[in-house]
Amino acid sequence: MSHTEYDSSSAQLIPTQRSRIKRIPQRGQYDSTAIYQILDEGLVCHVGFAIEQQPYVIPTAYGRVGDKLYIHGSPASRMLRSLQGGIEVCITVTMLDGLVLARSAFHHSMNYRSVVVFGKATVVTDSQQKLEALQAFTEHVLPGRWDEVRPPSSQELQGTLVLSLPLAEASAKVRTGHPIDDEADYQLPVWAGIVPLHLGATEPVSDPRLPLEIPVPGYALNYCRCAPNSNS
Amino acid sequence: MSHTEYDSSSAQLIPTQRSRIKRIPQRGQYDSTAIYQILDEGLVCHVGFAIEQQPYVIPTAYGRVGDKLYIHGSPASRMLRSLQGGIEVCITVTMLDGLVLARSAFHHSMNYRSVVVFGKATVVTDSQQKLEALQAFTEHVLPGRWDEVRPPSSQELQGTLVLSLPLAEASAKVRTGHPIDDEADYQLPVWAGIVPLHLGATEPVSDPRLPLEIPVPGYALNYCRCAPNSNS
Repeated sequence: MSHTEYDSSSAQLIPTQRSRIKRIPQRGQYDSTAIYQILDEGLVCHVGFAIEQQPYVIPTAYGRVGDKLYIHGSPASRMLRSLQGGIEVCITVTMLDGLVLARSAFHHSMNYRSVVVFGKATVVTDSQQKLEALQAFTEHVLPGRWDEVRPPSSQELQGTLVLSLPLAEASAKVRTGHPIDDEADYQLPVWAGIVPLHLGATEPVSDPRLPLEIPVPGYALNYCRCAPNSNS
Repeated sequence: MSHTEYDSSSAQLIPTQRSRIKRIPQRGQYDSTAIYQILDEGLVCHVGFAIEQQPYVIPTAYGRVGDKLYIHGSPASRMLRSLQGGIEVCITVTMLDGLVLARSAFHHSMNYRSVVVFGKATVVTDSQQKLEALQAFTEHVLPGRWDEVRPPSSQELQGTLVLSLPLAEASAKVRTGHPIDDEADYQLPVWAGIVPLHLGATEPVSDPRLPLEIPVPGYALNYCRCAPNSNS
């Protein structure tokens, strides 16, 4: 996304016991720029937490500001109520980039980029930081939208619970490229390669209650979840 | 997907304390057909489990056969090693269907379909059932592919750990439609509506080691993750 600039002096995060990629370690990345780019392109994260050994995985929107990941919702949400108690959380963002078709069933795979973040979330109480987080949610999905819509009222601000997770203990895992077949299988008469996948958008649908004279804004008309690294 | 037929005598799953949708309960669905359709259209699930209160959320492929969800991988995988010990798991599949642009920042939302499954996974030891699961992984992603590729050798079969999770304690959550704005906001001169999203595929890329005379199969050339309910 063109609105995002990444620091050229990207930091290497130190892998920990839980964030280190163990399966196929050469796919692991600990560079904060690589991690931020995946987080900025993704739209939905999966939040994992456990209550008395019972795991829950809940999809939700998110935003990033610097080295903080924000999630939000109603104070009545079971997930947010649990997390604000200071328990451990694992947040995962995954983007599917392609199907990888091998000559054997066994070597079929997928190309993907994912980020896993570990830590404890804290409640954002400062109202300025809370507003900054809410802006990040909107701008993350629709750059330019925030300035056009009615901003949150103080009541809405109070009625939203925002949690912050430091992007300190995180890792990315990336698979790219063609299938790796067993050497003997390369002579099989089977098509092999990649079916590239992406998140596509089609023509916006106006709310039926919208007056006809309000045009579709450009960021909605040509919505494209472009890879951030194409511009940085 | 046209290869999938859903039983017209769909069962209602009984919501439990952990599977019942608590936030915005009218979005909850417990009908097995609705749950199966979402699982069959999705490609990646997020597997959540906890080891000593530490949650992990790992993306992976999956397959469904009847009322069983299968995941698989290397026996060396931390996730699979943990799960085969019989601990609780939560598996979530999410598909993003659209961005919902409201007139206020607060009422922005997303249209989505998600399924959450709770339970304990068991190791599939019967080799016939294991083969059926592996077929389901391939056919789930690429209907028709299984019959064209080299099937798993007995060594590959032995080297793959397959886990089965019953689709007994599960729920779907679905948001559709336009934004719901505060009544006073409908007069604001702000565009509102939906940007529809889907998983799109572009032209397949042949493996450089592929002989030129092998054509791209139809299921890869016109890859479409169509909604199963369009055919059933």
